[in-house]
Amino acid sequence: MPDIPVFDQGTVLTAISPREAIEQVREGFVEYAGGEWQMPPKVYLDAPPNGDFRAMPARGAGLAILKWVTSFPRNPEAGLPVVMGVICVSSAADGEPLALVDVRSVTALRTGAVAAVAAQELAREDAASVGIVGCGLHGTWAGLCLAAAEYGPGVCYDPDPEAAGRLAGELGWEAGTREDALACDIVTCVTPGSEPVVLESDLRPGLHLTMLGADGPGKAEAEPAAVAKTELFCDDWEQACHGGELTGAVEAGLVSRDDVTELGDVLTGVAPGRSGPEAVTLFDSTGLAIQDLAICLSLLGAHRAGRVTAGTVTL
Amino acid sequence: MPDIPVFDQGTVLTAISPREAIEQVREGFVEYAGGEWQMPPKVYLDAPPNGDFRAMPARGAGLAILKWVTSFPRNPEAGLPVVMGVICVSSAADGEPLALVDVRSVTALRTGAVAAVAAQELAREDAASVGIVGCGLHGTWAGLCLAAAEYGPGVCYDPDPEAAGRLAGELGWEAGTREDALACDIVTCVTPGSEPVVLESDLRPGLHLTMLGADGPGKAEAEPAAVAKTELFCDDWEQACHGGELTGAVEAGLVSRDDVTELGDVLTGVAPGRSGPEAVTLFDSTGLAIQDLAICLSLLGAHRAGRVTAGTVTL
Repeated sequence: MPDIPVFDQGTVLTAISPREAIEQVREGFVEYAGGEWQMPPKVYLDAPPNGDFRAMPARGAGLAILKWVTSFPRNPEAGLPVVMGVICVSSAADGEPLALVDVRSVTALRTGAVAAVAAQELAREDAASVGIVGCGLHGTWAGLCLAAAEYGPGVCYDPDPEAAGRLAGELGWEAGTREDALACDIVTCVTPGSEPVVLESDLRPGLHLTMLGADGPGKAEAEPAAVAKTELFCDDWEQACHGGELTGAVEAGLVSRDDVTELGDVLTGVAPGRSGPEAVTLFDSTGLAIQDLAICLSLLGAHRAGRVTAGTVTL
Repeated sequence: MPDIPVFDQGTVLTAISPREAIEQVREGFVEYAGGEWQMPPKVYLDAPPNGDFRAMPARGAGLAILKWVTSFPRNPEAGLPVVMGVICVSSAADGEPLALVDVRSVTALRTGAVAAVAAQELAREDAASVGIVGCGLHGTWAGLCLAAAEYGPGVCYDPDPEAAGRLAGELGWEAGTREDALACDIVTCVTPGSEPVVLESDLRPGLHLTMLGADGPGKAEAEPAAVAKTELFCDDWEQACHGGELTGAVEAGLVSRDDVTELGDVLTGVAPGRSGPEAVTLFDSTGLAIQDLAICLSLLGAHRAGRVTAGTVTL
């Protein structure tokens, strides 16, 4: 077997700018919605009592990827990341391994990028200010990608004031309260999903919400009653209704399939976006392997073009 | 992230003898049957027109693995292996990546090993001679593992006489015809599964058959009528009835769940093995991630004990 390039965290983040990640992720949703890219459902492997693993395959543009990624929410107490793992990239033509890629950097880029794509498609045309609720790794990248998409300035809120201050400093924005963040035009929530941070009483005409935190059963960042009062969009209905922000409202009978539009259908013009400037839109991001594929495609392109160097491994 | 050990093909095959592979795979089946090890169903990602990918997760003994493996049957025409990929090994306690492992060597070892375990459990007590039908990579490892379990000598058959002669030479056995191979006590078939190599007329009292080649929909190595005439065993009913040797007989209504015993239930004494010396037994191996986990567990043990060295990679 030939040597396989290995892209570590620093290499990925050097190779791909937030702006490029946004374009690639947008394109990935378009290809998937158009049937060009394939994505079987992700598989969960429980690892009680601390977390779980997800195996996420996708195929498109001549590549087949498998993302093997953890969620161990209490890991930071032990100084370890919540999200760890690797993405295996293979040729879809003959199966040959083409690359191994750090999972944290790709996940951060593609999660931040979809917040920007959703804002571009679903927020009011005149939306500018951004509230970030939850300033951990993915909140940071949501902020970086929204800023790269020329949104902001905005307000960063986190129960840990140091985290909020750090992100606000990085972006040149302000740190503030949850209420300050929710008063912005575009609000992106990236919390652990263990309690609601968006209540029905927080909704205002014209608001756009992107909910990134609920990526598995039992997690939610908004009250079901709040969810049910918005115009609903998601990345993938199957994932969102079973293990996303929509799940609580679906289980309560407040929301059904017909109430929810997939982002790819908005991007391809199959379905409309927000109904008007006064609507409240909510985008539920559960995280799709096609987003990871989009970033890997960009990474391999940069490598082939000589814009990034990689280590190698022999298998 | 700390450096991750990488075990290439040569390292795996040096570290783990066929005899150890057999013991480990046996233990893996016991742990899985006892509910100690977990294994969600494998996921297929089609890659038309040439092949497919499988994502195979499993957890046990403190490890969680994901096997990302191809089947591209026509690859040898281009000088590439049918089976390529990588196994990601992580800690089940905190998700930390522990190793990356070559997929070919682990697949060969665990596939060969299960042929030996099945023979030990299901063949007649006085069974000795071995017929190998199909002398490619996995046929070779089935032969090596059966020999390590002190079966043989036997007969190697392949439509390519050179392949048969090579394996016979390696084992100190004979090359022969399909009929010669099928006249042995223990017959192991490892063909592409595109046409039957075991007919109803080949069955003789006391025969044990292990069918390794049918690992996906549409593949079969024995006529459904032959399958239906044997005492049936498999590694995993769900896989075997949908994409294994049993599938044709199940679809023809000749075989149902009650006719088939899982190997783990025989190993743990929950179910009997062959009914007597005159019975014909057939074991359908579809290939389980718990087998790969068993080999990886052994490999990491050898590494910790300093019996094997590995390269490293930084993610």
